[in-house]
Amino acid sequence: MLVFVLASASHAGPVPPKVERPRDIVVAAPANAWRSIPPDNLLLLDLADGRRIVIELAQDFTPKHVANLKALVRAKWFDHGHIMRVQDNYVAQWAGPHDAAGLPSGVVANPPPEFDRPVGGLDARFTNWRDGYAAKVGYAEGWPIGGDGASAWLTHCYGTVGVGRGGPTDNGSGVELYAVIGQAPRQIDRNIAIVGRVVEGMPFLATLPRGSGQSGMYQDGDPHIPIQRMAIASDLPAEEQPHFDVMKSGSSAFSAYLHAWALGHYGVIGQPAGGADVCNAAVPIRRHPAS
Amino acid sequence: MLVFVLASASHAGPVPPKVERPRDIVVAAPANAWRSIPPDNLLLLDLADGRRIVIELAQDFTPKHVANLKALVRAKWFDHGHIMRVQDNYVAQWAGPHDAAGLPSGVVANPPPEFDRPVGGLDARFTNWRDGYAAKVGYAEGWPIGGDGASAWLTHCYGTVGVGRGGPTDNGSGVELYAVIGQAPRQIDRNIAIVGRVVEGMPFLATLPRGSGQSGMYQDGDPHIPIQRMAIASDLPAEEQPHFDVMKSGSSAFSAYLHAWALGHYGVIGQPAGGADVCNAAVPIRRHPAS
Repeated sequence: MLVFVLASASHAGPVPPKVERPRDIVVAAPANAWRSIPPDNLLLLDLADGRRIVIELAQDFTPKHVANLKALVRAKWFDHGHIMRVQDNYVAQWAGPHDAAGLPSGVVANPPPEFDRPVGGLDARFTNWRDGYAAKVGYAEGWPIGGDGASAWLTHCYGTVGVGRGGPTDNGSGVELYAVIGQAPRQIDRNIAIVGRVVEGMPFLATLPRGSGQSGMYQDGDPHIPIQRMAIASDLPAEEQPHFDVMKSGSSAFSAYLHAWALGHYGVIGQPAGGADVCNAAVPIRRHPAS
Repeated sequence: MLVFVLASASHAGPVPPKVERPRDIVVAAPANAWRSIPPDNLLLLDLADGRRIVIELAQDFTPKHVANLKALVRAKWFDHGHIMRVQDNYVAQWAGPHDAAGLPSGVVANPPPEFDRPVGGLDARFTNWRDGYAAKVGYAEGWPIGGDGASAWLTHCYGTVGVGRGGPTDNGSGVELYAVIGQAPRQIDRNIAIVGRVVEGMPFLATLPRGSGQSGMYQDGDPHIPIQRMAIASDLPAEEQPHFDVMKSGSSAFSAYLHAWALGHYGVIGQPAGGADVCNAAVPIRRHPAS
């Protein structure tokens, strides 16, 4: 079997100096290259068949939307809800079983826009990679970002979780959530509030049956995929809480990782591009070794 | 239900002039904006459960690899083969049931590299979008390309089909094929020969169960997904041949489509980015209205 693991030097020209494979850098990264995700920033989406998707909340970027979502989750808004839409190469979207008009107390129907924030105060770095959507791209606090020097915003990448929204003056309360399951839909950056990203369980969302209706809406006759509940990890007994680490944006290991993405030659890559895409060079995230 | 279809103007500032939604431009495109895919450039991958994936071959870009693949298919190389690897957010890979050492007559074990070609002679256009991997990106003959002004190469996007390869001097005969099922792995552009792209059936590949082994290799105990056959459409009886159209890169409709991708404001997009990604602004492909 030919797997993409063997060294290659089939291109003409001198062989450039060896640059490590990104995943080898991740494996070797020291403990201080990682930050833990606080349990009250971890959201669990449990499907009725036992599958679990774990989401880190984007507390540093969209705090008002995150607070709203936490209030919804603690009011059991999503319990016994369902996956409502799966559009190939775009998003899986889900909702609770309730009428969105009857929001729980403490939940704001229309939070203020949170599409960008000042880059100051963040552990941020920008790359020199050219990007089709933002003047600069980089990483902050372990999240992929676009930016213009002064401000930063989260980018829609594989696994990004955002809030569905409706009409012109509606920013989305969080009663419907989607996760990106295909090519990064960067055109909705700064147009929809991102509240998190999947840190475990993406295959469960990415392999959901596509809906037969327009935009992948599930129709009568399509599979019905029930949600058991959503919960915040810190509300679970301590022994049931999962723990995850995210590679720090300012760490030396992350510098080496980005360098390897742009300039590494290993496996079948004999001709590195010299740049990369902020959604392709994904931030390393691992289940905490002790959990 | 909140779906992403309603007009939005929640951002501050004057409302820019209306630009159409890309998909509306596709629906309205005239007949002369489309080219048909010749049946001898259409490859069928039939799974044993009746699902069919249809692939357009990249005849204009990698003719030697395409010829090799056609010879393999006509020798029934892939019949009764299997999906061997599905790695989340990367590729699904398949192979025939045979030992790769025993190639059918007419199949070359190691075709010459076909990583780029002169842009001259192609119906090509470059965009002004900035890209992390290539000096320029654009489209040629209805395919997404990277380029440097003189040469052009196919880019790895969602649905791209390429040939697995092994050691340093091996360019891949085509005995193993993969399709991209996640974020565009542009780092392998110009490192692996692209032989085609899926034009129908991506949901079947994208929802395949992920393998439990390293790099998504299927292991004992993982689902076994048999392939019935691969065939070239022109070898089927005329009435069984599917027909597809691809939007021409030089058409006015395609110009309008790209303009809408970069500058359109519609639905939830009140703040267009002014650029796009060559894999995100996917070339419109449709089943021919009469097939």
